[in-house]
Amino acid sequence: KMDFVPTEHQHTRLNPLTGQWVLVCPHRMQRPWSGQEETPQKNDLPEFDPSNPLCPGVVRGNGEKNPIYQSTFVFTNDFPALLENVPAPPSSDDPLFQARQARGTCRVMCFHPKSNKTLPVMTPKEIRTVIDEWIRQFKDLMVKYTWVQIFENKGAAMGCSNPHPHCQIWACSYMPTEPQTKDQHLREYYAKHGTALLDDYVAKELVKKERIVIENPDWLVVVPYWAAWPFETMLISRNKVRRICDLSQQEINNLAVVIKELTTKYDNLFKCSFPYSMGWHGAPTGDLTDEDVNPWTLHATYYPPLLRSASIRKFFVGFELMCQTQRDLTAEQAADRLRQMDGRTHYSLH
Amino acid sequence: KMDFVPTEHQHTRLNPLTGQWVLVCPHRMQRPWSGQEETPQKNDLPEFDPSNPLCPGVVRGNGEKNPIYQSTFVFTNDFPALLENVPAPPSSDDPLFQARQARGTCRVMCFHPKSNKTLPVMTPKEIRTVIDEWIRQFKDLMVKYTWVQIFENKGAAMGCSNPHPHCQIWACSYMPTEPQTKDQHLREYYAKHGTALLDDYVAKELVKKERIVIENPDWLVVVPYWAAWPFETMLISRNKVRRICDLSQQEINNLAVVIKELTTKYDNLFKCSFPYSMGWHGAPTGDLTDEDVNPWTLHATYYPPLLRSASIRKFFVGFELMCQTQRDLTAEQAADRLRQMDGRTHYSLH
Ligand SMILES: O=P(O)(O)O[C@H]1O[C@H](CO)[C@@H](O)[C@H](O)[C@H]1O
Ligand SMILES: O=P(O)(O)O[C@H]1O[C@H](CO)[C@@H](O)[C@H](O)[C@H]1O
Repeated sequence: KMDFVPTEHQHTRLNPLTGQWVLVCPHRMQRPWSGQEETPQKNDLPEFDPSNPLCPGVVRGNGEKNPIYQSTFVFTNDFPALLENVPAPPSSDDPLFQARQARGTCRVMCFHPKSNKTLPVMTPKEIRTVIDEWIRQFKDLMVKYTWVQIFENKGAAMGCSNPHPHCQIWACSYMPTEPQTKDQHLREYYAKHGTALLDDYVAKELVKKERIVIENPDWLVVVPYWAAWPFETMLISRNKVRRICDLSQQEINNLAVVIKELTTKYDNLFKCSFPYSMGWHGAPTGDLTDEDVNPWTLHATYYPPLLRSASIRKFFVGFELMCQTQRDLTAEQAADRLRQMDGRTHYSLH
Repeated sequence: KMDFVPTEHQHTRLNPLTGQWVLVCPHRMQRPWSGQEETPQKNDLPEFDPSNPLCPGVVRGNGEKNPIYQSTFVFTNDFPALLENVPAPPSSDDPLFQARQARGTCRVMCFHPKSNKTLPVMTPKEIRTVIDEWIRQFKDLMVKYTWVQIFENKGAAMGCSNPHPHCQIWACSYMPTEPQTKDQHLREYYAKHGTALLDDYVAKELVKKERIVIENPDWLVVVPYWAAWPFETMLISRNKVRRICDLSQQEINNLAVVIKELTTKYDNLFKCSFPYSMGWHGAPTGDLTDEDVNPWTLHATYYPPLLRSASIRKFFVGFELMCQTQRDLTAEQAADRLRQMDGRTHYSLH
């Protein structure tokens, strides 16, 4: 009988946060690729572009003029997906035609006045102002909204429609599907084990040492055992922090250092401005603020699409959409690559 | 108080097959786009390309020579994600590190000897040979495998790595996550109502007439109420057929006509070879063949990414990955556009 070798033999792995299984097929990295090639994004934007509506002092489409901002700058999206005041759809008792009210708001947050200052080339101090702004926004929105989603779409390959470094904050009057599912799995685990799933996970990864990318006194970056995207990572609080607004000054300082290191590793991997979507998840807010927060651990997830080079990405299409996510290298292989990558000096500064 | 207008007011809709909610934001179609543009695929490939490993008579990478095939041609993928004989991972009782065995096979199926013969420009008779081959493959694989997934990735935008018209058939020794979830929802509905969810859905859509794209004696094409992709459609059996292998000759003939009409509408919508991923779902097979098939209704789903033009697609990124799928036009608006589109004459033949 053959021995099982995870880097050779396909298998499935459970994501305990969603209950979904991922198919891992490492032997598939060898297949030839003659499909779509991405245009690699380089870190070569001009500092300022008078036609870019996110730059300081520029007049946006709706006639509003941006201030000459010096660090971060937040405004309500001119074309928000979620508006504050919309009526509720009529209720229906047909299980096949169910609609619900959705209220919310969408904000855009610029990281820095200069268009060429992406996170890996910002100083830890500049990144700190970004984190401080995340916390300020979160505190402002959490009073009213059940879910506050801070997320960044970076790069054209991840649907980013403006190259100026920025993120978005969408707040909802309800629990969206993904956090809802996660909340349920975290609470079930907590009810059964009396501990937070991700607190336990952090402790185990620190012992196993197979998927660690960055170890920091307050934070752990791992390629999760159940990663779907090729170089997916989770950045997890080591201190049982439940929401981003509960971070201490030291944790914020260390987070700035970790974000700089992780995004530098990403950019260095294929020598390009590495595309990804990232977002923060922590305990729900608004009307759910007073529920038990202990099942939750604050974490950010990075979903980067590139697989083999700056121009070859992984597609989640036919089989993935119809059946289950499939990946072409193991989480351990991805973690090895990222761990060994230089996290100090950005390739553009060599 | 404002009245609720679905084409103006954002709301969420339930997908009863998955239990997930989709956020619908029709007012968002107006926002400007300066993000990634796709290269529209035209129907202008040469009939034959001696360097394309899917063409008749060409020698593939592994040294095998394709026959001079006249209609369809099926072979085992030279770089399969799923192999037949792989050992099982060691079992673990840690809920955070769960892996399972996955066995299977992956086949590639060419639709036609000519590279420029996509489905909309094939004759119904030629499309029939494709359906006949789907059924032959399904019957062959269903004996051994629990889930047989027939799917087509069309176009570079949907990760298709070879432009010769083809689909794939991946068979698994287990129920993958998506069919598993669907199976559960269908069985719960059946237990409660004594009818198949999609049989009921078809009956209701035929009365409502708001989302119908094509009505055929044996088939219904609708943009589902809970559609996620901009012009997503479901092609559903009207006759309570449970698996693709149970189709009658007449149903196969009518299916060929519907596929030609639907793919012609798609191509005509933005005057390009419309990219999509599609796949067939019906009752499970293999060790599950003898379970009650009545909760299931045979259907195909089409996921096309284009939103506004041949070059502007919808991205499911930050908010969608972290929270929930979000769409920019209502299912009814998309159905209207597709219904009104010419389904008889392909734009390239004008
Ligand atoms: O098998 P292909 O066409 O080379 O590959 C394509 O379809 C597969 C199945 O959906 C995906 O896993 C790949 O990411 C995609 O590029
Ligand atoms: O808001 P943006 O950056 O214009 O748009 C981008 O992010 C949104 C939120 O993830 C998505 O809905 C859009 O499809 C994507 O292009």
